[in-house]
Amino acid sequence: MNKNRLEAFSDGVIAIIITIMVLELKVPHHPDFSALLPLWPVFMSYVLSFIYVGIYWNNHHHLMHAVKEVNGGVLWANLHLLFWLSLIPFVTGWMGENHFETGPIVAYGFVLFMCAVAYSILIGRLLAHHGKNTTLAEAIGSDRKGKISIVLYLLGIALAWFAAWLGFLVYVGVAVMWLIPDRRIEQKVVEEEAARL
Amino acid sequence: MNKNRLEAFSDGVIAIIITIMVLELKVPHHPDFSALLPLWPVFMSYVLSFIYVGIYWNNHHHLMHAVKEVNGGVLWANLHLLFWLSLIPFVTGWMGENHFETGPIVAYGFVLFMCAVAYSILIGRLLAHHGKNTTLAEAIGSDRKGKISIVLYLLGIALAWFAAWLGFLVYVGVAVMWLIPDRRIEQKVVEEEAARL
Amino acid sequence: MNKNRLEAFSDGVIAIIITIMVLELKVPHHPDFSALLPLWPVFMSYVLSFIYVGIYWNNHHHLMHAVKEVNGGVLWANLHLLFWLSLIPFVTGWMGENHFETGPIVAYGFVLFMCAVAYSILIGRLLAHHGKNTTLAEAIGSDRKGKISIVLYLLGIALAWFAAWLGFLVYVGVAVMWLIPDRRIEQKVVEEEAARL
Amino acid sequence: MNKNRLEAFSDGVIAIIITIMVLELKVPHHPDFSALLPLWPVFMSYVLSFIYVGIYWNNHHHLMHAVKEVNGGVLWANLHLLFWLSLIPFVTGWMGENHFETGPIVAYGFVLFMCAVAYSILIGRLLAHHGKNTTLAEAIGSDRKGKISIVLYLLGIALAWFAAWLGFLVYVGVAVMWLIPDRRIEQKVVEEEAARL
Repeated sequence: MNKNRLEAFSDGVIAIIITIMVLELKVPHHPDFSALLPLWPVFMSYVLSFIYVGIYWNNHHHLMHAVKEVNGGVLWANLHLLFWLSLIPFVTGWMGENHFETGPIVAYGFVLFMCAVAYSILIGRLLAHHGKNTTLAEAIGSDRKGKISIVLYLLGIALAWFAAWLGFLVYVGVAVMWLIPDRRIEQKVVEEEAARL
Repeated sequence: MNKNRLEAFSDGVIAIIITIMVLELKVPHHPDFSALLPLWPVFMSYVLSFIYVGIYWNNHHHLMHAVKEVNGGVLWANLHLLFWLSLIPFVTGWMGENHFETGPIVAYGFVLFMCAVAYSILIGRLLAHHGKNTTLAEAIGSDRKGKISIVLYLLGIALAWFAAWLGFLVYVGVAVMWLIPDRRIEQKVVEEEAARL
Repeated sequence: MNKNRLEAFSDGVIAIIITIMVLELKVPHHPDFSALLPLWPVFMSYVLSFIYVGIYWNNHHHLMHAVKEVNGGVLWANLHLLFWLSLIPFVTGWMGENHFETGPIVAYGFVLFMCAVAYSILIGRLLAHHGKNTTLAEAIGSDRKGKISIVLYLLGIALAWFAAWLGFLVYVGVAVMWLIPDRRIEQKVVEEEAARL
Repeated sequence: MNKNRLEAFSDGVIAIIITIMVLELKVPHHPDFSALLPLWPVFMSYVLSFIYVGIYWNNHHHLMHAVKEVNGGVLWANLHLLFWLSLIPFVTGWMGENHFETGPIVAYGFVLFMCAVAYSILIGRLLAHHGKNTTLAEAIGSDRKGKISIVLYLLGIALAWFAAWLGFLVYVGVAVMWLIPDRRIEQKVVEEEAARL
């Protein structure tokens, strides 16, 4: 079974997810710039979620690039990932409308956490299908960033109970970690580990 | 006429169907977790429908994989299937907003029933175009699961008149039947038939 | 310039148009079947528009199949067609919400008329780019159905001023004319012309 | 890394952006034609934005046609462009609902300005990846139109503070500049420059 339709379908779903979030930015009824002010938290949430969905699309693109073929398990692992991604607009809207309070920040972190878990399940399914000594396995490597992210999401959720903005900061940090080009951060991690020893 | 655009168009429509359902999860106006509680039935409906649409995409993917070319009849049979799939968000929303009462459960079952009928019409059109002794015919086989599903949807609709949750349970059961990997369930069916004889 | 992205983009836009129309079917707040009754005109409008958009996708598919390459003029003629198609959800919603009165019926016919005009402009652009003695020109033929449709839309608009349902009937008739497989209707037209002489 | 998925994903996002704008055309509750009158500014905004998104899709199509392969920087530059394009429905809605007053006109111009900046960043990323002496560099040329547009958007924003309709006129002018086939306008620019010397 080839991977083309899985890519096309995922592209479609991710494209819709990334775009319907903008519908939460409700058109103001006044023409003054001051009418844009109350939209500030919604806009901030939109920017962060746009970046997160962009990161997932980017990673999905890289991952599938190294994939030769897919099976039923991979299709469902992919749908599972898309399911959690599809909840991002909902938690984004909740976070934006409620000005970064604990509830929405925890929910947002939980959905990010589940997306990361779903992504690592997808990786597991792909490796099980392709074998350990393939270009796919090399492309994925140790998936250090993925594992760090999962831990950081849990940290963000925990911190959000004390101060919601702390949780938000952690999520921003994870996004920044993914935005920095791979090689540099991997070198950094390697250097830091070398420094510790 | 080749099948690529039919696949691409179906992927697009199914991707939109699966994603607009999440819009029924209305963003709560309070930041407390308790604000998520009333969304429970909407969320449950969303999960079930996401799985159903995922099953259809999966099956469509498998079916079209074995297809060589399409004609006008196939295009319309495919659009007919997409029409009934497009009603899933509507009945999902109705079911979610009305807490699994008879009306919405019957309507949901009816749309699932029509989707299944439309899918078997699509199979029929494809077989008529390709002939009985092809890889497509082998790939489809006796379509036992499809036929069982149609009967079970009718059973679910009938049961919903007595107790709505019974109908809902049947629909969940059909979804589970499709989620279990093919070979195992087919072996089971074969074993059960052997046991009966 | 190749045609693949034009096809993919058109598929995307048409898939979204066909799917967002279903959002006009507002989820009822009561679980009784009687709550579905007021949705009847909206549903009827949805079915007709789904068929029309399906016909356009089908014809677009056939047309582009014979196309070798596209230029800037073709891209814009295609966007012009997509523009008028994108107004179908609006007039469908208006027609559905206002129970087939003159205003919405005329507006619906006008949009169908403009879609048909845009489609024939697209054909013109493609023929100008490919030349008259090509497989494309043969595939299009005299485009008799397209020309008949344009006249019938105008007839429907005119009739709607006397009785709205007459206009609606004409639009249904045009859709039926396109649904009937090509060869049969072309033979019919030929026979009728022969009978007249 | 090949460019196919970047094209497919961009097509998906742009197709959704161009289509969800029509949702701002709220279905009137009266069947009279007079009910369409208040929609006039919304419709005008929709037409202009449809043309702008169409221009971006067209240019993206041309640009990517000459591209051989993409890297991480290009993927993010493309997502950055899609981000600003995704805000077009919002400012379109604001402009349409508030009858072309200064606030929305300035906001609309600002988003167009950022789209143009993002597009030129994308061009920069592609040139950095492909090198200066390639078919891509030739296809882009001096990107004179792109640079003129950026200046004109700023002019439109400045004029909108004095009279909103002046800003609107400038945006219409830029769209017209892009709609006129390339060679003619480039010849004109060349002639005008020759005339000045």
